[in-house]
Amino acid sequence: MKALVYQGPGQKEWVEVPDPVLQKSTDAVVKIEHTTICGTDLHILKGDVPAVEPGRILGHEGVGVVTAVGDAVANIAVGDRVIISCVSTCGTCAYCRAGVYSHCQSDEGAPGVGWIFGHLIDGTQAEYVRVPFADTSLHKLPDGVVPEQAVLISDILPTGHEIGVRNGEVKPGDVVAVIGAGPVGLAAITTSSLYGPSRVIAIDLDPNRVAQAKHFGATDGVLSTDPDWKEQVLALTDGLGVDVAIEAVGAPATWGMALDIVRAGGNVANVGVHGVPVTFPIDRLWSENLTIRTGLVNTNTSPMLIKLLAQGRLDVGGYISHHFALDRILDAYDTFSRAAETKALKVVLNA
Amino acid sequence: MKALVYQGPGQKEWVEVPDPVLQKSTDAVVKIEHTTICGTDLHILKGDVPAVEPGRILGHEGVGVVTAVGDAVANIAVGDRVIISCVSTCGTCAYCRAGVYSHCQSDEGAPGVGWIFGHLIDGTQAEYVRVPFADTSLHKLPDGVVPEQAVLISDILPTGHEIGVRNGEVKPGDVVAVIGAGPVGLAAITTSSLYGPSRVIAIDLDPNRVAQAKHFGATDGVLSTDPDWKEQVLALTDGLGVDVAIEAVGAPATWGMALDIVRAGGNVANVGVHGVPVTFPIDRLWSENLTIRTGLVNTNTSPMLIKLLAQGRLDVGGYISHHFALDRILDAYDTFSRAAETKALKVVLNA
Amino acid sequence: MKALVYQGPGQKEWVEVPDPVLQKSTDAVVKIEHTTICGTDLHILKGDVPAVEPGRILGHEGVGVVTAVGDAVANIAVGDRVIISCVSTCGTCAYCRAGVYSHCQSDEGAPGVGWIFGHLIDGTQAEYVRVPFADTSLHKLPDGVVPEQAVLISDILPTGHEIGVRNGEVKPGDVVAVIGAGPVGLAAITTSSLYGPSRVIAIDLDPNRVAQAKHFGATDGVLSTDPDWKEQVLALTDGLGVDVAIEAVGAPATWGMALDIVRAGGNVANVGVHGVPVTFPIDRLWSENLTIRTGLVNTNTSPMLIKLLAQGRLDVGGYISHHFALDRILDAYDTFSRAAETKALKVVLNA
Amino acid sequence: MKALVYQGPGQKEWVEVPDPVLQKSTDAVVKIEHTTICGTDLHILKGDVPAVEPGRILGHEGVGVVTAVGDAVANIAVGDRVIISCVSTCGTCAYCRAGVYSHCQSDEGAPGVGWIFGHLIDGTQAEYVRVPFADTSLHKLPDGVVPEQAVLISDILPTGHEIGVRNGEVKPGDVVAVIGAGPVGLAAITTSSLYGPSRVIAIDLDPNRVAQAKHFGATDGVLSTDPDWKEQVLALTDGLGVDVAIEAVGAPATWGMALDIVRAGGNVANVGVHGVPVTFPIDRLWSENLTIRTGLVNTNTSPMLIKLLAQGRLDVGGYISHHFALDRILDAYDTFSRAAETKALKVVLNA
Repeated sequence: MKALVYQGPGQKEWVEVPDPVLQKSTDAVVKIEHTTICGTDLHILKGDVPAVEPGRILGHEGVGVVTAVGDAVANIAVGDRVIISCVSTCGTCAYCRAGVYSHCQSDEGAPGVGWIFGHLIDGTQAEYVRVPFADTSLHKLPDGVVPEQAVLISDILPTGHEIGVRNGEVKPGDVVAVIGAGPVGLAAITTSSLYGPSRVIAIDLDPNRVAQAKHFGATDGVLSTDPDWKEQVLALTDGLGVDVAIEAVGAPATWGMALDIVRAGGNVANVGVHGVPVTFPIDRLWSENLTIRTGLVNTNTSPMLIKLLAQGRLDVGGYISHHFALDRILDAYDTFSRAAETKALKVVLNA
Repeated sequence: MKALVYQGPGQKEWVEVPDPVLQKSTDAVVKIEHTTICGTDLHILKGDVPAVEPGRILGHEGVGVVTAVGDAVANIAVGDRVIISCVSTCGTCAYCRAGVYSHCQSDEGAPGVGWIFGHLIDGTQAEYVRVPFADTSLHKLPDGVVPEQAVLISDILPTGHEIGVRNGEVKPGDVVAVIGAGPVGLAAITTSSLYGPSRVIAIDLDPNRVAQAKHFGATDGVLSTDPDWKEQVLALTDGLGVDVAIEAVGAPATWGMALDIVRAGGNVANVGVHGVPVTFPIDRLWSENLTIRTGLVNTNTSPMLIKLLAQGRLDVGGYISHHFALDRILDAYDTFSRAAETKALKVVLNA
Repeated sequence: MKALVYQGPGQKEWVEVPDPVLQKSTDAVVKIEHTTICGTDLHILKGDVPAVEPGRILGHEGVGVVTAVGDAVANIAVGDRVIISCVSTCGTCAYCRAGVYSHCQSDEGAPGVGWIFGHLIDGTQAEYVRVPFADTSLHKLPDGVVPEQAVLISDILPTGHEIGVRNGEVKPGDVVAVIGAGPVGLAAITTSSLYGPSRVIAIDLDPNRVAQAKHFGATDGVLSTDPDWKEQVLALTDGLGVDVAIEAVGAPATWGMALDIVRAGGNVANVGVHGVPVTFPIDRLWSENLTIRTGLVNTNTSPMLIKLLAQGRLDVGGYISHHFALDRILDAYDTFSRAAETKALKVVLNA
Repeated sequence: MKALVYQGPGQKEWVEVPDPVLQKSTDAVVKIEHTTICGTDLHILKGDVPAVEPGRILGHEGVGVVTAVGDAVANIAVGDRVIISCVSTCGTCAYCRAGVYSHCQSDEGAPGVGWIFGHLIDGTQAEYVRVPFADTSLHKLPDGVVPEQAVLISDILPTGHEIGVRNGEVKPGDVVAVIGAGPVGLAAITTSSLYGPSRVIAIDLDPNRVAQAKHFGATDGVLSTDPDWKEQVLALTDGLGVDVAIEAVGAPATWGMALDIVRAGGNVANVGVHGVPVTFPIDRLWSENLTIRTGLVNTNTSPMLIKLLAQGRLDVGGYISHHFALDRILDAYDTFSRAAETKALKVVLNA
C-alpha cells in the first residue's frame, strides 16, 4: 500500500510500504476512507517529538472500513464503517477502567501512553492501518453522520470537549473564554454549547479567526492584539473575570492570559501543547481558589459526541475547509502548514 | 480592654484599647475565652501583608461567649458559647451563596476578601471582638466539644480539610502525600481519614515531625532530606505516583516535589502560602491529566467538622502543644515563633 | 390595598385589605407589577392544602418594585425592581446554607417549610406584599429581561430546571422524556437544552400540547393515548429506554409510565404534585440501578436562569398565553382553570 | 469434577460433572480454593429465580488459581491466584464502559444481565469454574490479603459498599442508618467508615445482630421491635432524621422504615432483594427532596476494596463465622440456612 512515512525532521514521503496485518487477536485492520492532518503532525515533522522514529507512518485520525478482525474481537466485524480513536485503550488496565485512556498501561506502544498511532506504531495517513484493541478503540459509524465529518471525532472534537470544556467544568450560566480560535479552540467553543454557558468569548490575534468563531458558537470575540483586550473581556463578565478560561494555543503568553482573566473560584483548562515551562504566579494566586487542569484527550466521550452528530445536534460541517485526494497528501500538508495564509481549518484527505 | 496590637513590621503590643461595640444590626460582640496564633500572624509581623495597618488588633481564631447581638441576628444569642470563623461570610452575595466565603463580596473589610479579622478589621487576640455577620460567621459550641480544642475549628482544621483534602479530592483507596507536617499539614493528614485513603504519607525535613505525623493518621513517613525521598514515596504506590499530593509549606521546592510525585490523572492541592512565583513545567505536564488547586479556606465545612468533634470522631487534642494565659500572649508568640526548637504545634491562649 | 383572599374551599375574593408593613429588620415590601397563577393555587382553592387558612392572600409568584426595606437589608434598596422567589430562604440555617431552601428551618411560616407565600403568610396576588429575608429571597431584575417574563423565574422555570432537569441529571447525549407538557413540563423541556441532550421527547395526552412542546425545545412528541406509546418512546432510544424520565403531572398513571420507559441505570425525576400514594414495583426494579428523586424547588438556580434570560439564551416569551389587568384576576383564574379549553399556559396579571 | 448442582426447587446435589473448558479466547478456568453461600442461593433453591434451570451449578463467589486462559487474555496468567467477581463484565459495551457492569450487554448469559454465575452459566460451588471475560472479571490476589477473606470481595463487600454506601452518598458528618444487620448490612456498616460519617446506626429485630454490628463499625444500635424505635433513631440525629437510610432486608416493612426515618433532602439506598411491590407514599414525600436508589452490584469498586484489604484498612475477618471443607457443602448450606439459630454470617468452603 501507499503511506505517508516520516523520514526524520523535515522529511516525509508518500511511498509504497507493506500492508499491515493482524498481530494480536484483539486487532483489526481498517481501509482508510478519510483522514486528516493534526497540528501535532507538524510538530513531529519539526522533530519536536523525538519518540517518533524515522520509518513511522504518520497520522492518528481516520474513518474507514474494517477489512480484518482478530479472533477475540466481539463488537466489530469486517465490513463495518468505523471511526478510529486517536487514543488506543486496552479496556482492562486500571487507567482504562477509570476512563483515563490517555494513560493506558498496556505495552502496545509504551505503558502509560494512550496516543500511539503515528507516534509509537504506524498511523492512519495510509491506505490501511492496523488498529490494536479494536473493540474499545473503534466506533461504528451510525446512520446520520457524514463520514467525512466523522473524522473530527478521532481527535479534535473530543479534545476540545474533554480537555477544554469538561476539564473547565463549564456549567449553565458560565462566561467562558477560549484563548486561541484554531481548530481545537473551535471544538471547545462548539461543544461548550452542551453545557449552557451565558457567553462564550473567542480570543485570538487573527481577526478572521475571531469572526469565524462566531459561526461555531462564540457569542463574543476579542482581539488579543488590542491593548485593552483584558478590559474588554472583563466587561463581558460582572467585572470579576470569566468562570472558565480555556487555553488552546500552548504558549507562555496565552497561559498568562488565562490566569489574568479567570475569576476567583474559576477554572483554567489547558488544551495547548507546550514546548517550554511557564511561570505560575502562585504568590498572587494561592488564595484565589483556582482549579487548573492539563490533559491529553481520553476519547471516552466520543460515543456521546457521535450520538449528537447523528441527531444533528452538533453543527461541525464548517470545520472542514479543504478536501484532497489521499494521494495528494503532500499538497494537503502544504496547505495546512500555511493556515494563516490559506485559512485552512481541517484539511480532509479522501481515499 | 486589652488586645494585641500590630504597630508595624516587627512590632506588637499587649495594650489597653477601647472595647468593641456593635456597628451593624448583623454584628455580635464576643468575649474571647480561647484564641491562638497562626503562621499568618508571623507573616504579618514580618511586614509580608501590607494590607494590615498599624493599630490593627491581630488574630483570626477564637472561642468565646456572646455578650451582645444586633437586631437582625436570629440564630445567635447573648450567652451562647461560639466558635469564630477566620473567614467572615455575609451569606447573601453570589460567592457566599455558592459556598466560596473566602471571596465574599461584601464591603465589610473589602469586596472579595473573606479573611478580614486581624487583617482588615480588628481581630481575636483580645479580650473582646466584634464579629460581623454573626448568624453566618459564628458556630455554636455543642456539648461534647472541648472548648479549648474548638479553637482549631476557626482555621486550621477546615483549612487542612477544604484546601488540602477536599481540593485534592481524596477518595477511598487513594495514596495521599502531605508535604509539610506542620499544623496545617497535620490537619490535612487527620481529615484525610474521612475519605478512606489506603495510605497517607507524611513528608517533612524534620524527623520529629515525620514521627509525630503518625500519631495524627499518617501511615507512612518520608524524610525529604533523604536523597532517595522520591523513590521512597513511589515505592509506597504502584510505582506510578501518588493519587493526591498536598503542598502544605509554601515554597518553590515543595511545589516542585508535589509535581514530581503525583501520578498521571492525579491531583495537587496547594495549601501553602507562597511569597514568590513558581515554575510550572507544563512542557512535561500538559499531557498528564493533572488537576491543580489553590485556595483560601471557606470554612463551609466547619459545621460538619464540629459535628465530628462532638461525636468524638476526630482526635485532635494532641494538636495543642502549649497553653498560656491570654495576658501572656507575648510569651506565646515567642514560643510559637521558635517552633523547631520548642516543638510547638498550636499554642493556645486562655482568658 | 386590594388582594385576592382565600375564603375557604371554592371561595376567593378580590377585596380591600390592610397594606403590608415591615415586621422584621430583614423584610422588604414590594409593590406588585406582575404576578401569575400556579396550578397549586387551584389545588388550594379545592381545599387540598389544609394549611392554607381562610383570610390568606394567595399567590407565590411576582415581579415588582421595592417600597420599603428593613434595617438589616444590605443588598436590596427601595426602588429596585425585583423578582420574588416562591421559596423564602433565611440564608443562615443548615438547609439554606446547603442550598436546600425548600426546607428552610426558620420559623417564618413554619420550620422546614420554604414555600410560605400564599400558604403560611400572605402572598403576591395583591397590590403589595411583605417579603421576609429580602436579601436572600429577592433577585434584582437586570437589564435585558422583559419584566413580564421575569415572573416565570419566581417558580416555574427553576422548578422545571431543578426538580426536573437537575434532579434527572440530564447530561450531554441523553435521551430525555418529559411526561406532561403543561407549564412545568415545558420548563423542564426548555431548560434541558442547557445540558446537551440528544433527544427531548414530550409525552402528553393532548395533541395540541405535544405539538406546542416542539416550539419549546422538544425534538420528538408521543401521544400517551396511543396504545403503542411505549414502543414509540423506546424506538427513539437504542431500544433500552430513556436516560431520564421526568414526571410532570402528579398521578399514579404517569408515575408508572416513567418507570416503564426508563433504562437500567437511568434516572426518574418527579416534579408532579401527588395526592395519593403510588405503587413502586421494587420486585422488578431492585436490580435496575435506578435513581428516583422527588422535590420542591429551592430556587437556588434562579440567579443563573436570570443571567441566561438577560443574555437572550432562554426563549420563554411564548409561555405567556394570556394577559390581564391585576384587578381582573377573577377572570384570569377562570381562564387558567379551563386550560384545556382556553389553551392557557401562563396567565399573567399586570398592575 | 464435583459440583453443587441445582435440580429444581428444593433440590441440590454434590455430584460428578464434566470439567469446564475454555469456550472463548477471553475465558479462563479457575480451580476453586474458597467459595461461599449467598442468600440469593437460598432464594434460587426456593424456586424464586426461575431463570435458573435444573442442571445449573450454583454459586457466584470464589477465590482460586487459574489453570487455563484463552488466547486473548492479557492480564491474567495460569498460576495466578484470583478473586472471581460475582458480576461478569465484557469491558466493551456501553454499560461496562460506564462502569455499570451489572447490566453488561454481552450475550454471555443474556444481554443486560451481569450476574450470570450460578444463574445463567455454571457457577463457583464446584472444583473448577469457567470464567468469561477473564481480563475484566478476575482480580489478582495481592500480598497481604488472606485468601479466605478475599471471597468477601466477590459480592458482599462491593454490594454493601456500592449499593448501600455509595448509592446512599454517605459523606463526612452524616448520620447513617442501616436497616438489617445481616452480612450485606454489615458490609454497608463497615464500608461506610470510608466516608467519615458521624454516626452509623444498626437497626435489626435480633438483639444479637445489633450487638454484633458494633464490632463492625456501628456507633449505635436500635431494636426494630421496640415500639419507639423511630424515636430512638431520631434522637440520634438533630431530630429531623438520618441523612442516609440503607435498606438491607428486602421487605415492605423495612422499606417503609427507611422512608420513615430519612430527613428532607436525604438519601435512601435499597440493597435488599424484594419479592413484592411496595407502596411509595409520594403524596407525603413529593416535596421532601429525596433521592432513592436501587441496584445490583457492579463490582467496579472491587479493585479499590482489595487495595484497602491489602493495606489492613478494612477489618473483615469477623464476617466469616463458619468454615467447611468444600465436599461438606451440603452441611454448610444447612448451617447457613438456619442462620438465626446457628448465628451464621458468612460460611466459607475451603477446597
